Amino acid sequence: MLAQGIHHLGVAVDNLDRAVATYVALFGAEVEGRQTVPEQGVEAAALLVGRGRVELLASLGDDTPVGRFLARRGPGMHHVAYEVGDVRAAIGELAGSGAQLIDSEPRAGLFGLEVAFIHPDSVDGVLTEVVAGG
Amino acid sequence: MLAQGIHHLGVAVDNLDRAVATYVALFGAEVEGRQTVPEQGVEAAALLVGRGRVELLASLGDDTPVGRFLARRGPGMHHVAYEVGDVRAAIGELAGSGAQLIDSEPRAGLFGLEVAFIHPDSVDGVLTEVVAGG
Repeated sequence: MLAQGIHHLGVAVDNLDRAVATYVALFGAEVEGRQTVPEQGVEAAALLVGRGRVELLASLGDDTPVGRFLARRGPGMHHVAYEVGDVRAAIGELAGSGAQLIDSEPRAGLFGLEVAFIHPDSVDGVLTEVVAGG
Repeated sequence: MLAQGIHHLGVAVDNLDRAVATYVALFGAEVEGRQTVPEQGVEAAALLVGRGRVELLASLGDDTPVGRFLARRGPGMHHVAYEVGDVRAAIGELAGSGAQLIDSEPRAGLFGLEVAFIHPDSVDGVLTEVVAGG
């Protein structure tokens, strides 16, 4: 599979407003979008950092994926997403390469993007997402 | 400070050759360079993943920065580096914004790049590097 680049870096944070303010102040980040997704237990802010993108992820409760991550590891880098042309094709190629996929079908991610996650055990401990460019 | 984009994502790995092979097989990564830096206790491979860049970092011993990271957290994302025009100017602006810097002067990083690190406590738990584009 040919990844086209880093689509975004996902970062788990304790306080979304404070984290957004930090990235704006330190790196001149611009807020591209904000979204609350109750069914995923997450409130997210997409930031443009120059040509790059950082997704800040805050938990809506302790018993959510981001809440459990924060309880276990504290705030910090959560996942990296690589841009691909087609998520379904990428899933097939990754499975063919022996990667353990969390999503065997494309699913709706944040900000209306089609995504799939690869298990960190297949990528040297890094939770890795593929996302169709948008 | 205006960051120009994500220069690279730094990932700590247990076995550099195996990790390089994983990124080549799964994402079509290309090896941009490899470097062993005994005084930093690290062996690194820079990979191009499409337009993005990942630095894989393996430890040359337990009592090294990457070795201690691996012992504490296991393999996974270690730092993110943002590209800036001038590292010395960035240090001044970051300090002026109240960020806690690990490096108060630019220093030589991997692959001949000029870098400085910001303490993770100032960036929501993310060890963050600024690097002059190269």
